[in-house]
Amino acid sequence: MTDSPVLALAKDLISRKSVTPEDAGCQQVMIERLKALGFEIEVMVFEDTTNFWARRGTQAPLFAFAGHTDVVPAGNLDHWDTAPFEPTVIDGMLHGRGAADMKGSLACMIVAVERFIAENPDHNGSIAFLITSDEEGPFINGTTRVVDTLMARNEPIDMCIVGEPSSTNYVGDVVKNGRRGSITGDLKVKGVQGHVAYPHLAKNPVHHALPALAELAATEWDKGNDYFPPTSFQIPNLHAGTGASNVVPGECDVQFNFRFSTELTDVAIKEKVHAILDKHALDYDLKWTLSGHPFLTDQGSLLKSVVSGVTEVNEEAPQLLTTGGTSDGRFIARMGAQVVELGPVNATIHKVNECVKVEDLEKLTDMYQHTLNHLLAK
Amino acid sequence: MTDSPVLALAKDLISRKSVTPEDAGCQQVMIERLKALGFEIEVMVFEDTTNFWARRGTQAPLFAFAGHTDVVPAGNLDHWDTAPFEPTVIDGMLHGRGAADMKGSLACMIVAVERFIAENPDHNGSIAFLITSDEEGPFINGTTRVVDTLMARNEPIDMCIVGEPSSTNYVGDVVKNGRRGSITGDLKVKGVQGHVAYPHLAKNPVHHALPALAELAATEWDKGNDYFPPTSFQIPNLHAGTGASNVVPGECDVQFNFRFSTELTDVAIKEKVHAILDKHALDYDLKWTLSGHPFLTDQGSLLKSVVSGVTEVNEEAPQLLTTGGTSDGRFIARMGAQVVELGPVNATIHKVNECVKVEDLEKLTDMYQHTLNHLLAK
Repeated sequence: MTDSPVLALAKDLISRKSVTPEDAGCQQVMIERLKALGFEIEVMVFEDTTNFWARRGTQAPLFAFAGHTDVVPAGNLDHWDTAPFEPTVIDGMLHGRGAADMKGSLACMIVAVERFIAENPDHNGSIAFLITSDEEGPFINGTTRVVDTLMARNEPIDMCIVGEPSSTNYVGDVVKNGRRGSITGDLKVKGVQGHVAYPHLAKNPVHHALPALAELAATEWDKGNDYFPPTSFQIPNLHAGTGASNVVPGECDVQFNFRFSTELTDVAIKEKVHAILDKHALDYDLKWTLSGHPFLTDQGSLLKSVVSGVTEVNEEAPQLLTTGGTSDGRFIARMGAQVVELGPVNATIHKVNECVKVEDLEKLTDMYQHTLNHLLAK
Repeated sequence: MTDSPVLALAKDLISRKSVTPEDAGCQQVMIERLKALGFEIEVMVFEDTTNFWARRGTQAPLFAFAGHTDVVPAGNLDHWDTAPFEPTVIDGMLHGRGAADMKGSLACMIVAVERFIAENPDHNGSIAFLITSDEEGPFINGTTRVVDTLMARNEPIDMCIVGEPSSTNYVGDVVKNGRRGSITGDLKVKGVQGHVAYPHLAKNPVHHALPALAELAATEWDKGNDYFPPTSFQIPNLHAGTGASNVVPGECDVQFNFRFSTELTDVAIKEKVHAILDKHALDYDLKWTLSGHPFLTDQGSLLKSVVSGVTEVNEEAPQLLTTGGTSDGRFIARMGAQVVELGPVNATIHKVNECVKVEDLEKLTDMYQHTLNHLLAK
């Protein structure tokens, strides 16, 4: 039996060993297919990372598929039932590193677009692809820099489907229509080291920090909203002391992390944290690392079209969730785009024996095509 | 020039390499001298530690000199100007490990007693020596076990001079007439580890501990008294977290230490700490280590005699202080004894080039002898 177009393409991509930040020729495979459809291709290399931007059409709205060709390392090969970069179908499951995260999705996107354009060569708006090979790495030279480039030339994406594996039990049971923001603070509270027996000559930074940290931990940052739980504050790491029981430590290192809803911004969080620390008169250094702004797509034609597309295939509407970690969607959302994540079941991602149901690849292709129909068909 | 008796004895003791818990024959040298004076000798070996108890007389009051023959290691010999176990006089200073802490004091005690008995063969009360070789080590098999033995047979010391180097600038400028108590708590606050993105599935022990720790740090434990500063609470060590910024820690380890005055007891401290932790509903383990009860000798014939003895030599009264760390005086004080510490200048103790002024050894001998005169002469 010959492989279907989507299975054949997924296998081709999986067979290329694109361990992050390597692309290993995956993007060239996609580019050739898109060129044939009349896409204009722009390869964007930033440092060690290869990205490409492809666009067909010049009109608004600008709809884009976003994804990555890089995969996480295979780990210990002895634990795999198949060679991770030799795609293999067993009992209807396609095995291989990247099968679910997210070379399967990439194949679905390409085939869906091929079919859509075959039926709608003169579609409304524009279709684009934003593909990186730096999603599993430090995400510095990938999507975020392509987004910077597009914004600098005033070419904002209006609507975007990210192909991350959003599904839990079967493809399309969950669509992610937003993500919480994440920001980390590395706080160093400064005191004066000394001997425990001479406390008047020392200044214990732990003692000074405690009331401020207690207030931070007890604060209600917001009440959340229909789509997001309340913003949470957590102290994952806290360290002070030399180990000796008779030495007053000179510094206290505290790391805290916020997972924040769309009710707050990083700026508002920073202001409030500094106000609390200053109120307690702490001597401190504080370094902030913003991992991502929160985003939410709770209305608009994209969400409506995706929900319709999924429902037409599954005969059941998807659940809309904002749970889980961060994704590249956060970078695209800051263009003002509507962003939705729809992809395969995520049960095996980043694990040995990563796999995806072959049937789900066909369904996901249909979901993508139906969505395009709703959005851009004349 | 021939060495004076006290210098000769100090040199003999220093030349014996009694790095803790070794005694290296030091106690035998002292025992021979005391036997000659009519002392009854009792050698008490506990595990790796040699101690002796010597007593002359059967009457009350029982006065004792207490001290140790062990010394801290010499450390890097390259940093010493002289060989640490070859006693050497340079510019009026006797150099060698233990010169100040406290083989110099031991020599002064022996010579002072020899002179006192020569003049007062039929003195009042009893004179004793409580000597250990485990003061610089874990102090488990030293003074505390001799004290246990004496208490078990109802032979309590009434008055005791500990020969620890109490002086700051010149011998006898400071007499220590008490010490703070010290107790350490090792607290483990228990939570439930989890992912920062799913705080409802975890329980952050840091967050739960913060208000309790803040209350402990803000508590006024007592106001101190004429001889002691207020009891101090310090957190020398505080640790939680795996290092990862996305993991809620499962445990929070806190170490705190109290240096406490005679206004408090270890029992009262423990009760109050547990009450605060329980009030905050913490799930915790707490292990206590009592290093020493506080003691104070603010009146009585011993203090009066020591002050007189020092003043007669220095023409200036000593300052009475309770500052600094712990000493074996804490073990003797729990017999109900009056305890005072009087010894040489402590500037070089536990350092390279430890030394003591030869002239100070003569003065300290006189101070001890004058004290005996006040206390026990007929």
